[in-house]
Order: sequence, then structure tokens, then C-alpha cells
Amino acid sequence: MKQHPIHQLNKAFDNRARLGIVSALRARKDVTFNELKGLLELTDGNLATHLQALEKVDYIVVKKEFAGRKPKTSYTLTRKGKIAFDKHIEALASIINTSGL
Amino acid sequence: MKQHPIHQLNKAFDNRARLGIVSALRARKDVTFNELKGLLELTDGNLATHLQALEKVDYIVVKKEFAGRKPKTSYTLTRKGKIAFDKHIEALASIINTSGL
Repeated sequence: MKQHPIHQLNKAFDNRARLGIVSALRARKDVTFNELKGLLELTDGNLATHLQALEKVDYIVVKKEFAGRKPKTSYTLTRKGKIAFDKHIEALASIINTSGL
Repeated sequence: MKQHPIHQLNKAFDNRARLGIVSALRARKDVTFNELKGLLELTDGNLATHLQALEKVDYIVVKKEFAGRKPKTSYTLTRKGKIAFDKHIEALASIINTSGL
């Protein structure tokens, strides 16, 4: 029997917040901490924890800079993160297909 | 700002095993315990735990019968489970779309 596509899912994206973060970064080059916070409606602490988890596996990188006098923290998807996310999405699409919808 | 589709995801399906179970039941009317076990490559205990969790929220129902002299346990998606799963899949599809793939 062909392996079920759930085995191709990536544990790093089981969590909805992490899935949301990476899908936002997949769509745009740089996304700031505050934009992610607004988009995903997470607390600072919760968002920071998920960002750290994604940084740890080298799926995203953080960039700290100044916009005028204000510090700005933004995030970018790495090549590794992009490949991992695309594979995950492909598995999800297969699950949707095998479910006959 | 429009709410991000991750908020439409259903916690019951965050877990890959539960997503796999329900996608299998969505595709076919009755699926036996052993078929699910083979399909999803789970241990008896692990599969039983996830099936119980889905029964508890009335997403699936269990049917115990005899096939000849052998007991046969199979599972069916309820109407509530079908609606919940389709909504979840719709949210996943939105996430895939917003990610620009």
C-alpha cells in the first residue's frame, strides 16, 4: 500500500501558529514581529516562542534594524524553511485529494 | 484586517494521526480498525487513543459486528465530523492560497 501522505507532514508545522507564521513568510519577503502578531492574534510571548522554535531548526532568520530611531524586528524564511514548508503543503494537498473532496 | 485562516483550523485535527483517520473516513463509508492501522502505521494503542478522542467529540462512530465468526470493528464519520473536517480542509486550502503557492 502506498504510504499515507500524513507521513510527509512536518512536525514543525503541526502547530497552527507555526503554520501561520511560515505561510505569512512564504507569501512575503520580510514580515515584522508586529505584523505577525496582528495577523495571527497571538500574545508577544506566545509568538516569540514559536518564532524561536522555527529559528532553532533554521527555517527562519531574524533581522534587527532601526527604522529611523525605532528598532524593527523582522523575519525571513530561509531556503531550508521554504523547501520544508512546500513539502508540508504538498502533503496537505494530497490529504485533501485522498479525502475525495 | 481579515482574520487569518489559521483561526478556522480545528484543534481536533492538529494531530496528524487524527487528520489521517478522518481523511480516510471522509473518502469511504466504513473503514476497519486494521485498515486504519495499516494505512496510518500506528500502534494499536496509539490508534485507539485517537479514535476515542474523535468519538468523544461525536466526529466518528464505532460499529462492532461479526464477519463470520471474527469480530470486526469499523468506524464511520458522523455528519458533525464531516462538516468539521470540511471546514478544516477549507481553512487549510486558504492557508495554501495565502502562502502564494
